[in-house]
Amino acid sequence: MSAESLTRFSLNTATIKRSSLIEAISLTAHSGLGWIGLWRDRVAEVGVKEARERLDDAGLRVSSLCRGGFLSTRDPRARAEALADNRRAIAEAAELGASELVIVAGGLFDFAGAIAGRASANQYPVLTAGEKDLADARQRVAEAISILVPEALAHGVRLALEPLHPMYVADRAVLSTLSQALDLAEQFDPAAVGVVVDSFHVFWDPALRQQILRAGRTGRISSYQISDFVLPLAADSLLSRGYPGSGYIDFGTMTRWVTEAGYLGPVEVEIFNQHIWDSPAEEVIRRAKQGFLSQLQPALSSLS
Amino acid sequence: MSAESLTRFSLNTATIKRSSLIEAISLTAHSGLGWIGLWRDRVAEVGVKEARERLDDAGLRVSSLCRGGFLSTRDPRARAEALADNRRAIAEAAELGASELVIVAGGLFDFAGAIAGRASANQYPVLTAGEKDLADARQRVAEAISILVPEALAHGVRLALEPLHPMYVADRAVLSTLSQALDLAEQFDPAAVGVVVDSFHVFWDPALRQQILRAGRTGRISSYQISDFVLPLAADSLLSRGYPGSGYIDFGTMTRWVTEAGYLGPVEVEIFNQHIWDSPAEEVIRRAKQGFLSQLQPALSSLS
Repeated sequence: MSAESLTRFSLNTATIKRSSLIEAISLTAHSGLGWIGLWRDRVAEVGVKEARERLDDAGLRVSSLCRGGFLSTRDPRARAEALADNRRAIAEAAELGASELVIVAGGLFDFAGAIAGRASANQYPVLTAGEKDLADARQRVAEAISILVPEALAHGVRLALEPLHPMYVADRAVLSTLSQALDLAEQFDPAAVGVVVDSFHVFWDPALRQQILRAGRTGRISSYQISDFVLPLAADSLLSRGYPGSGYIDFGTMTRWVTEAGYLGPVEVEIFNQHIWDSPAEEVIRRAKQGFLSQLQPALSSLS
Repeated sequence: MSAESLTRFSLNTATIKRSSLIEAISLTAHSGLGWIGLWRDRVAEVGVKEARERLDDAGLRVSSLCRGGFLSTRDPRARAEALADNRRAIAEAAELGASELVIVAGGLFDFAGAIAGRASANQYPVLTAGEKDLADARQRVAEAISILVPEALAHGVRLALEPLHPMYVADRAVLSTLSQALDLAEQFDPAAVGVVVDSFHVFWDPALRQQILRAGRTGRISSYQISDFVLPLAADSLLSRGYPGSGYIDFGTMTRWVTEAGYLGPVEVEIFNQHIWDSPAEEVIRRAKQGFLSQLQPALSSLS
């Protein structure tokens, strides 16, 4: 495998979750890669300034910063806190040289409790009928995005709306399809709001080709993130992802569509999977590269 | 609670899975209900002829027969078998007086093995890239439906296409949205092909209102099935359903849309949930009625 064919591979730090930021930067650079996708909690380990210095020293560029969002809350105080946190995330992305800030919309309820207590069903809140109104929650997200747009433009950072798989609509993201994310994004400057094409979240969509082409046509593809859809679903459904080729996603076809749409940026490998997290990081990177080269690279090089 | 307000309640036998057909008929009738939704394996316990006699004796009408489908296979022999089985299902529905035969499209692979060996991840097959092509699988389903349509019309039975939640796209149904099901259904006579609106499968859809109204406008709503979306997802994700009100679905809003669309038929309570299956059937029926009356009935009576 030539280094050349991995020029568009970006390693998202969530794939090697147990590595510190410093370790992740070192592993990525020593693996011959030029791109890295960062999570804010990793960056916070050393602070944004030092993170940027380390990235520059290693010659790495940041494909995206994960993540902002969780903007669907009805509670005015929680909403103000979420907006303030998103403003900080925009500033951090700018300081890190990341042009794309991944935005996860938020669900019908604050999922922090659910994350903390995932072992117990009792952690999931009981909602009133009004609190289950998805249209209302989507409207609150749209309003919050409009508030953040000027901030994003001022910092040269794009809000990358990520539709999540419909299985997460209640607890994590009321944005479920590319079509829906694009309907929202297109209300704003393409420099301010884009969309993430994440294979795991959107592969099932019957309108996928059409919506990927639409996103490309309007210059809205902020990121192409990949992991496979593995069955049976993991007990924690968030972790039901695998190396490209280990599940049921037709990466050749999807990647041709993304290429056809004109996207020539980095391709982020972002895998949430307990077994992979428990494996040595070097092995994970090796297998992620293999999956990328066998499943995606042919479709990336065919047109680009 | 008046009996009158339960005139549209239909008990799907999958909700009281441990009851035999004879028990289910007796329980339904003695609960003051007039509709029942049947599964073919239950009917097979006594045969179609005796089942019809028992239903007539109990004064029950059949809201739908579950189910035909699994028409996505690439294998010619398996495809011929599937078509033959669907023809038998159409004839059974006609003999039972059920105007609607629920059709689950089938996934990228035959899920029977997955059902049998659900405890083990090894039961899930490895597919080639070509076998993961969703567009191809959808095309095979469409062709099979076109083959079955004359048979359905001849028997006065409608093929009720059921979009399943996108989490089942690989193993159970390559039809994932109402929009997609309607695109297929509208190629045929409304007397031959309709769609199922199942709350669990479609509640997340941003286009839900629009597609329910479209289905109503074209006379395509074959069935309104209900169960709630419960978190965390059950280890077996198929069983992550609950009584109306126990999860995150806004039944008032969805039911208003179904009513607005002109649907005045039975509302089938179909809940797959291990805990509910392990409970006494009388208690299950009582709680299902409660959920129906509190969550759905107000929206059913508001316009009808």
